[in-house]
Formats: sequence, C-alpha cells, structure tokens
Amino acid sequence: QIDSARLWDTIHETAKFGGTPKGGVRRLTLGPEDKQVRDWFRKACEAAGLEVHVDALGSMFGLRKGRDMSKPPVGLGSHLDTQPTGGKFDGVLGTLAALEVVRTLNDAGIETEAPICIVNWTNEEGSRFAPAMMASAAYVGDFTTDDILSRKDADGITVAEALDGIGYRGEAPVGTQKFASFVELHIEQGPILEAEHKTIGVVDSGQGVLWYDGKITGFESHAGSTPMPLRRDALATLSEIVLAMESIARKHGPKAVGTIGEAVIANPSRNVIPGEIAFTVDCRSADAAIMDALDRDLRAAVAEIAARRKVDVKLDLVWRKPPTHFDPKLVDAVENAAQALGYSNRRITSGAGHDACNLNTRIPTAMVFVPCKDGVSHNELEDATQADCTAGANVLMHTVLALAGV
Amino acid sequence: QIDSARLWDTIHETAKFGGTPKGGVRRLTLGPEDKQVRDWFRKACEAAGLEVHVDALGSMFGLRKGRDMSKPPVGLGSHLDTQPTGGKFDGVLGTLAALEVVRTLNDAGIETEAPICIVNWTNEEGSRFAPAMMASAAYVGDFTTDDILSRKDADGITVAEALDGIGYRGEAPVGTQKFASFVELHIEQGPILEAEHKTIGVVDSGQGVLWYDGKITGFESHAGSTPMPLRRDALATLSEIVLAMESIARKHGPKAVGTIGEAVIANPSRNVIPGEIAFTVDCRSADAAIMDALDRDLRAAVAEIAARRKVDVKLDLVWRKPPTHFDPKLVDAVENAAQALGYSNRRITSGAGHDACNLNTRIPTAMVFVPCKDGVSHNELEDATQADCTAGANVLMHTVLALAGV
Ligand SMILES: NC(=O)NCCC(=O)O
Ligand SMILES: NC(=O)NCCC(=O)O
Repeated sequence: QIDSARLWDTIHETAKFGGTPKGGVRRLTLGPEDKQVRDWFRKACEAAGLEVHVDALGSMFGLRKGRDMSKPPVGLGSHLDTQPTGGKFDGVLGTLAALEVVRTLNDAGIETEAPICIVNWTNEEGSRFAPAMMASAAYVGDFTTDDILSRKDADGITVAEALDGIGYRGEAPVGTQKFASFVELHIEQGPILEAEHKTIGVVDSGQGVLWYDGKITGFESHAGSTPMPLRRDALATLSEIVLAMESIARKHGPKAVGTIGEAVIANPSRNVIPGEIAFTVDCRSADAAIMDALDRDLRAAVAEIAARRKVDVKLDLVWRKPPTHFDPKLVDAVENAAQALGYSNRRITSGAGHDACNLNTRIPTAMVFVPCKDGVSHNELEDATQADCTAGANVLMHTVLALAGV
Repeated sequence: QIDSARLWDTIHETAKFGGTPKGGVRRLTLGPEDKQVRDWFRKACEAAGLEVHVDALGSMFGLRKGRDMSKPPVGLGSHLDTQPTGGKFDGVLGTLAALEVVRTLNDAGIETEAPICIVNWTNEEGSRFAPAMMASAAYVGDFTTDDILSRKDADGITVAEALDGIGYRGEAPVGTQKFASFVELHIEQGPILEAEHKTIGVVDSGQGVLWYDGKITGFESHAGSTPMPLRRDALATLSEIVLAMESIARKHGPKAVGTIGEAVIANPSRNVIPGEIAFTVDCRSADAAIMDALDRDLRAAVAEIAARRKVDVKLDLVWRKPPTHFDPKLVDAVENAAQALGYSNRRITSGAGHDACNLNTRIPTAMVFVPCKDGVSHNELEDATQADCTAGANVLMHTVLALAGV
C-alpha cells in the first residue's frame, strides 16, 4: 500500500506552482510555473535515488534500477502541465503517484526484476502548443523532433525557444529511453465511475481525435447601415458552424463529441459586423467509422453554410489521432490488480487523449482511471477524493510490480 | 463652388495619420494618430483665420467671425476618429468639407451675417470608448462631463487619461460654444443612393440605437470527456443568441438591424468547452415601436436560450438613443440647396448614428449624405468619388450660407 498522506501532500504541494485564486492551476507547458514544478520534480526524483535525464523535447525520465538491468524498464507516469484554467489532478495525479510508487518501494526495500522508470511528458495538454501529447507522439515517431521543436504558440514562440527559455532542452535524443511496457494513472475526467460508484476504471480504449484550424472571411461593414440581407457576417457564420458541430456530435449519441473551444474576431468593434474569425474545432469518437463521419458531416455543413452566406471558410485538419485499443494483456493486468486489492471496477473508454494512447502504438500500454467530482476536468473546480487517488496509486503500483517482477 | 481638388487633397493628406496597408485608416479616438490629425486640423483652422478652442472632452471648435457677432454661429462639421479598420471618408469628409467651406468663403471674400463654426467632435465611433458620439451627447446634456471622463477603454484607460495623454483636455466647459443650427455632411454608409443613382441624400431621420453588454457564464469542461447532454457551453449559447438576433432583425424586414460585433471567450483552449464569454449587441430601428420590440424579443430569446442550456446570461442595456427626426426647416434648406445646385437627390434615413442626431435634440439640425461605393463603411475598402464629395461639400456650403445669411 502506498503512503496515502504523502501522495496527497505532494499533490497539494505542487499545486502551488501556478495555483489560482479559485483553487485551480494555471501551468502552461514550458512556462515559468512549469519550470518550477519541473525543478521540484527533478529534486524529488533525485532524493528518491532515481537517475534523472531529460530528452530533446523536455520530457523527464527518472530510472530506478532493477535486478536485471538488461531488461527495458516498465514505464509509469503522466504530465505536470495544465490547462489555462486547469485543476490540481489532471496529469499531476499520474506523475506524483508514479513518484509515490518509487518512494513506497524504497521504504519497503523492494527491488524489482526489471527496472522501472517514471516519466513527466512535455505538453500533454496541447493548449499552448498543438497537438496535445506532442512529446509522446514524437517518442513513438508520429512526428519528428525537429517538426515539434518548430511548433509555435499564439505569440509565435517556438517549442525550441520555450525549452531553452526554461533550461529544459535535454541532451538525450527523443526515444533514448526504451520501455518494456507503460502504465498511466489518471482521473477519469468524465462522469461514469462516479455515477456507477466504481473506484477504478480499467481503461481498455480511448477516443480518436480530430483537430482543425478554421478561418472565416466575411466582410466587415457598418452595424447600423448595412441591411440584413447584404451582410456577410463572420460571427453569424461561426454560430451556424458551432451549432452544426453540436448537432452532428449529438446525432451519434454518446459515441461522439464536438467542440469549438477557441474563436477570435479580428479587429472587433461594437458597431462593425465581424469580417474575419479564426477558430478551432475538436471532435472525437472511439469508433473510427464515426470519426470519418464526423469529418465528412462537418465539412459538408461548413461548405453549405459558407456557400449560403457567401463567406469563405477554411477548415484545415491539423491533427488526427485514431482511436486507441490498449494492450489486452496489460488491461488484464490492471484489472487483476484492482480485483486483488478489492476495489470495485469496470472497463471504460477514455474520453480524453493521454500520452498512454500514443505509447500504445509501439509499446504494450494500459491506463488506470479514478473518479473525479461531477466528472469535471479542464476546470479550476476539478476535484477527486484522497481515497480514490490512493486506490488508483495502489492499482498502479501492483500493476507495475506484476509487470516488472519482484 | 468649393475647390474640389483642395478638398480631395486634404482628405488624402490626413488619411496618412493612421493609414493602413489596405488603404484604410486606423485612428482610434484619443490615440497617437488622433493627436496627429488633431494637430494638423488645428494648424489648418488657424491658417484659415479661425479662432480655435478645445472643450473639456476634446471637441475642437474653429470660429469664423460674422458681421453680427451677437448671433450664435451656424455649426458644421463631423469627426476625425475612425474604426479599428475604418475608411478614409467616415467623419473625415464632413470635417474637412467644413474646413473647405471656410477656405472657399475666405478666397471669395464672402462675409456671413452670423458667424460660422466648424467642429471636430471627440469619439464619434464608439469603438474605443462607449457610447458612440459621446462628446456631442454630453454637449446636449445626455451625460455629464464627469460621467464621460470616467468611461474606460478595454485596457482600463479613462477618457480623462486619454485626453491628458495627447494634450487635448481643453479649458472650455462642454457646451460653451453655442450654435443657432448645425449641418453635418457624411457618406451614406449604406447602399441606397448608389443603387438609385442619386448624388445627394437629404437626411430627414435617423435610426435609434440599443447597445448592450452581455456576459454568458456556462461551465468550463473537457472537450473530449464531457458528454454532449451534460455541457453548459458558453459559445454554443452565444451562437444561438447571434442567430436569434439575426432572425429578430430580419423579422422586421428593412426596418431593423441587429449585430453582435464583439465576443471574447475567457481563457480559451482548443480542448476546453468555453465557460465564459463577454459580448456586445448593437440593434437599431428608425421606428420607436420596433426598437421596443427588438428589446423585448431579444430579451425573451436570451431568457429562453439561457434556461434551456442551463447557463447564466446577463444582458445590460448600456446605451439607448431614440430615433432622430431632423428639423423640418433645416431639412428643407438642405433640399433647396441640392435642388438649386442641380444635384439629383432624395430624402433618406440614416442607418448610422451621427453627432448631428445628438445635436438635433437641442438645436435645429440636418444632414447631407453622399453615396459611398457598394454602401460599404467601417471597412478599409470604404470609398467615395471626388465628384460626389464635391457635390456634398457644395450643398453643405450653400445650406450654411442660407442659414447664416450673406
Ligand atoms: N487528459 C487530458 O486532458 N489531455 C488533454 C488532451 C486532450 O484530450 O484534449
Ligand atoms: N457614422 C458612424 O459610423 N457612426 C458611428 C456610430 C454608429 O452609428 O455606430
């Protein structure tokens, strides 16, 4: 059993790096608060006897030796960056529970057969730089390191500049650290476990993701003197697109979601009809055929709206992550650990994307979920109980021990 | 007849203060470019022999003596501020045509019975500070000077600070300069004159305006893991409001318009359902009963949408300007001048608000319109012909001469 109080304390200790008045965390990837939590994490890893290294995209690896160092380690971890108005648990729980597993094994003097390696992946959230989970995507070869290093945030700062700015561009080429398998603990970020009073979600799959960058070009004109029929209003166009995305997602019932999260009017003024808007779209399904339908239906709706309103709409797919099916043997291992520890559990699909979803394309991978309050995440009010976080960390530890061998 | 080439040259000379690459002008009220054009205007007035003074809200007055100085002057003018992506004619034409009238009278050695006074009103556009036409509104007593001085722009800078910043907070209390009557020349900013091949619009009325500040509070949440039915999406809510405003305005046919010009998502992120949005509404009609209906219908639609989507929507009316009916005698004077000069003309309603609409509540006032290309205004592509601008300036001069007496 892990040390519940110690885990809880570290969660709250690190929540001060970027802590917000509403009790959330604003710790955008590679910003000053991310540097603070990284420095803290590096020290904590070193104090726990881990050998720490940082790769060329800033992901941090802490290796705990095993009896047989010829074996690749079992990986565990998550991320320490947050959304602009994020919570204390998203990513943090999985990373600090990985640290807690190491601390518990140290205290109990337990040596594993294979080494184990805890990880803090760079930019899981994807709100400062796109795509989300970019470092683990580069790790599995979905993108080159140079491609990712050149991605820019809204202010035009590249990943490379941001890494150098906080001193976290490591020496090790991406992919240097090998893994035999990987396990990630995370809050569910959805309402199912809580509603069904289950402590552990045994994650067997994950939704695929489509991200688009959109731009609407209508025509700026006077809000008072331009008759309604002559308008080419970019905001009215966006409004139809937002509602179309909503109804397309609803059409697929619980099997799809669709969101416009960002929309910026160029040169806005109260008495000017908006002429240009940049926006982004996020839509998802765990079913590849439905993902194709979402793409097709969205493009058709946008084309119809644009033609009818005589405006130009560009919609560029900037990221496509297929649905994830986690490794059946590892999923079983997670389920066995939950059963053995006596925690109520169920199989579940992840609504969110995770580094584990990327790693799974190359390495046997699985995930452990615990409930979060009202299913709320990406919100400063995100919350989870100490008991559930402890249960999740215990399942993580026992899964890792089963994989690494004692 | 005014000097057509000289008028055209001054319009293009001043267009360099805040000139944009697309051929428009960005000269936000009381900003550095506004200071440049004000300095230019003051010098030009002084060179034309006018006695210049500035009032406590920065409006600039240039007095040309008449034979009978016991008579209050006939006022003429407009404004030199622009929209963020504005054109070269909106406001500028009326102000520089007023200067051109003085120059022409000087050249011809014409003395008027009553004095005449040319004006550059502060913040007609209303995009940096609300409401629009704020200085003329204070002039007629709709707001106190202190109220207006305390209005803030988006960066929290007050009108008082902005005036001090460019050295245009004058000594004269607002209202010091009296007028017997006022005439404003402006581009139509709508498509009617051009469509009907008329050179002069004899403006007999103007739309009333309702301005609202809105705020939507939904709930931020994860774009991937929050099921569609559980969402309280602020952007989807705004989208319904935008389309409701559009259909309410359309319902009243050509007699109403409605626009959402500004909308800002708080802490936007690609994978976060928008939780909070600030927006503004501008809706108008020349019919007071329709204005009441617009307000009623908009509030009802917003209430229904908010309740159905379980979000909170605040809608505060921040400005209400009733429809304008210009002074019949002055309207006749404009029409007579247009007829005498042989310009094709028609009576017209102003879709836009103008300082003349405020002044009309206290002083006999009228307006002269000239066509603009495709009816486009509040756009960098705004355009008008030299011939039409010249015609408008001639009608302005002959109306003023008729009112002031020769
Ligand atoms: N777990 C999580 O919130 N990831 C962020 C990436 C996404 O799914 O949008
Ligand atoms: N004439 C003009 O564009 N005025 C700006 C105020 C408004 O009507 O919105």
